[in-house]
Amino acid sequence: MQVEVVAIGTELLLGQIVDTNSSWIGAELAAAGLNSHFQTKVGDNPERIRAVLEAALSRSDAVICCGGLGPTQDDLTREVIAELMGAELQLDPTVADRICAMFESRGRTMPDNNLRQAMVPEGATVIAEQPGTAPGLICPVTIGGAERVLYAVPGVPYEMKEMVTGTVLPDLRRRSGDASVIASRIIRTWGQSESGLAEILAERIDELDSAGNPTLAFLASGVEGLKVRITAKAADLDSVTAMLDAEQRRLEPLIGHWTFAYDDDNMETVVVRALEERGLSLAVAESLTGGYLSGRICAVPGVSAVYRGGVVAYHPSVKTQLLGVPQGPVVSEEAASAMALGVCRVMNADVGVATTGVAGPDEIEGRPVGTVCMAVTVAFGDEDERHTRTATIRLPGDRERIRQFSTITVLDLLRKML
Amino acid sequence: MQVEVVAIGTELLLGQIVDTNSSWIGAELAAAGLNSHFQTKVGDNPERIRAVLEAALSRSDAVICCGGLGPTQDDLTREVIAELMGAELQLDPTVADRICAMFESRGRTMPDNNLRQAMVPEGATVIAEQPGTAPGLICPVTIGGAERVLYAVPGVPYEMKEMVTGTVLPDLRRRSGDASVIASRIIRTWGQSESGLAEILAERIDELDSAGNPTLAFLASGVEGLKVRITAKAADLDSVTAMLDAEQRRLEPLIGHWTFAYDDDNMETVVVRALEERGLSLAVAESLTGGYLSGRICAVPGVSAVYRGGVVAYHPSVKTQLLGVPQGPVVSEEAASAMALGVCRVMNADVGVATTGVAGPDEIEGRPVGTVCMAVTVAFGDEDERHTRTATIRLPGDRERIRQFSTITVLDLLRKML
Repeated sequence: MQVEVVAIGTELLLGQIVDTNSSWIGAELAAAGLNSHFQTKVGDNPERIRAVLEAALSRSDAVICCGGLGPTQDDLTREVIAELMGAELQLDPTVADRICAMFESRGRTMPDNNLRQAMVPEGATVIAEQPGTAPGLICPVTIGGAERVLYAVPGVPYEMKEMVTGTVLPDLRRRSGDASVIASRIIRTWGQSESGLAEILAERIDELDSAGNPTLAFLASGVEGLKVRITAKAADLDSVTAMLDAEQRRLEPLIGHWTFAYDDDNMETVVVRALEERGLSLAVAESLTGGYLSGRICAVPGVSAVYRGGVVAYHPSVKTQLLGVPQGPVVSEEAASAMALGVCRVMNADVGVATTGVAGPDEIEGRPVGTVCMAVTVAFGDEDERHTRTATIRLPGDRERIRQFSTITVLDLLRKML
Repeated sequence: MQVEVVAIGTELLLGQIVDTNSSWIGAELAAAGLNSHFQTKVGDNPERIRAVLEAALSRSDAVICCGGLGPTQDDLTREVIAELMGAELQLDPTVADRICAMFESRGRTMPDNNLRQAMVPEGATVIAEQPGTAPGLICPVTIGGAERVLYAVPGVPYEMKEMVTGTVLPDLRRRSGDASVIASRIIRTWGQSESGLAEILAERIDELDSAGNPTLAFLASGVEGLKVRITAKAADLDSVTAMLDAEQRRLEPLIGHWTFAYDDDNMETVVVRALEERGLSLAVAESLTGGYLSGRICAVPGVSAVYRGGVVAYHPSVKTQLLGVPQGPVVSEEAASAMALGVCRVMNADVGVATTGVAGPDEIEGRPVGTVCMAVTVAFGDEDERHTRTATIRLPGDRERIRQFSTITVLDLLRKML
């Protein structure tokens, strides 16, 4: 069963709104085991909407189209669908009553425009869920002799989601007659380049490519790491999970060295959980990351159990006076180490993490842009057992990427020490 | 000149990444006066990529395709384009050298895979900008007897943007033969809602709509403010600038009260510049913003002239011990005020800015999610002349939006005090 998504609205083409609806529907289709190979955005123009829907219905069994069901003149989806079906638009009294009732319940008079929303092409079925004024439609369409189905849902995300979850996906699953389940697992890695991973996995990818199920893909995701995605299809959830588990075990000896998390976990959540399990509190001192490192840590739910806080030591005097960094170069492992120890002292924390370096655009102390010195210090149990590790790396990219890569790299250093 | 956008990557169809590239390109095309009627997403499958590119090149004069230029097996754009051009892929030694040099500068060995990225279809031109390992391509394609142009750019946003801005848009403008100049001015506002601004500007928008040039648009942009964009078209740069100036003057009495910056300036750059002009140094103390406020400030080029640093006082003990906040509720204007004064003392700064509040998901001290207390303290000349202002606001949205809105609001408070 091939299903594709068409998003309608000039504001999407102009970039005034990012089309998150199609992405959400794409994820839901995959989870429901339905193939989805194309997504198209088109503006509020009847000829172009019709051309896009015809092309989609020619190559796919079903099309979900979002948007253009509102009450204004530039909402054209109903008219175009009626044309495609060769059907007349008729006022649906049940829908009209629903819309009137909605306005009444909010103590408002219904503008006449809104009755346009009650116009339904003959032969179409109204979707049961209707959280807003726009009704969703299930429309049988014949294209080139083939029977297809077109679902029209509103562009307002919560209205669309309620209809897709409640009616569209179950209807598609029923039509597909396929009870199989598709699922993915993300393996997150750090410390190896995308091309390096691809080389390591080349043989396995070739084997999988010829079999076709499961499949592997890579995704460079900045501070979220370099992701390896396994996708599998099977008869039921247990079988697909077993396939993902088996493939993950198979990849483990190849890429386990760089693997730090799976699925929705990221470097921060993994580190925070490890700290919590060991009863260790954390503080950070940062210079070139400027608050970004702390901000990432604070975004982890439940972080207050371990996080004391951070110092952004931007000016050299803050490094020396508040954190006790000795006089000397500030882009150095010595300075990073002193910052990590200093912030532990100031915030009474067991674990200190520090970054200092050159975010650009100019060199500092003769060190080139992208040079980052980092330190992690951990007091296991008591202060006598404090371990400190430092590292210097050289990163590519602009200020933003240097910050992101510094952050994930220093947290990875901490993860390895725990 | 019709231009459309094709985004390539299975991860886009599966909803693992939202396709923000196409939205950004759509906005840039509109700003450059180029029509764009379709945007398509397609997975990493050579037949389907080819079908989509052929359809796009048949109905549009130019196509920008993003993604699939990486070093791995599932990066297929180069091969498909070569097929469409009826050309062979050849190793481009200049590109190969560039890629090698990138690896060398980071002290790493280049995996053989990366040489795939130096394969260029015969007849294609390499785009001058190449911030990453993937080169961009300008490819002449003949479809059904018509001469078209296909631009291939990487899916990594900062690489794509550099190429589109530096080469693709100027090349499209040149090909379009349209010598007129289109330019935009962004007026950035804060403190008034989008619908409030729309009401204030409704009459003027109606007038402009009937004339068609210049035009006005709104863009809610989180921590970047609520933008009002004027776009004008004229014969040359001087004329278009005069039109933008005239429209800006016309809007000034209507929205000047909420205007804080123009074009690429944002709240941070405006505040940092004002501090620099007055010779004042800055420090921040933050709780619910968790480092985000400091990170935004540090992103301003040249901020080191004014910025001392920041304290992320996440744990209550850091607020009391390091910043001297008195015992009592931490979500209060008193606590915010003490934090701002405390961080000035600790960092020896003239100006202190502080945020404390409830980012969610749970209430704190009986205050609901979205409650934010903030303080700004400024020592003009000497400590005797210190002025402190506090405020409490209630923000909608999730953790991320609460952080963004807190940050821009507290900086706006500082801006007004300066």
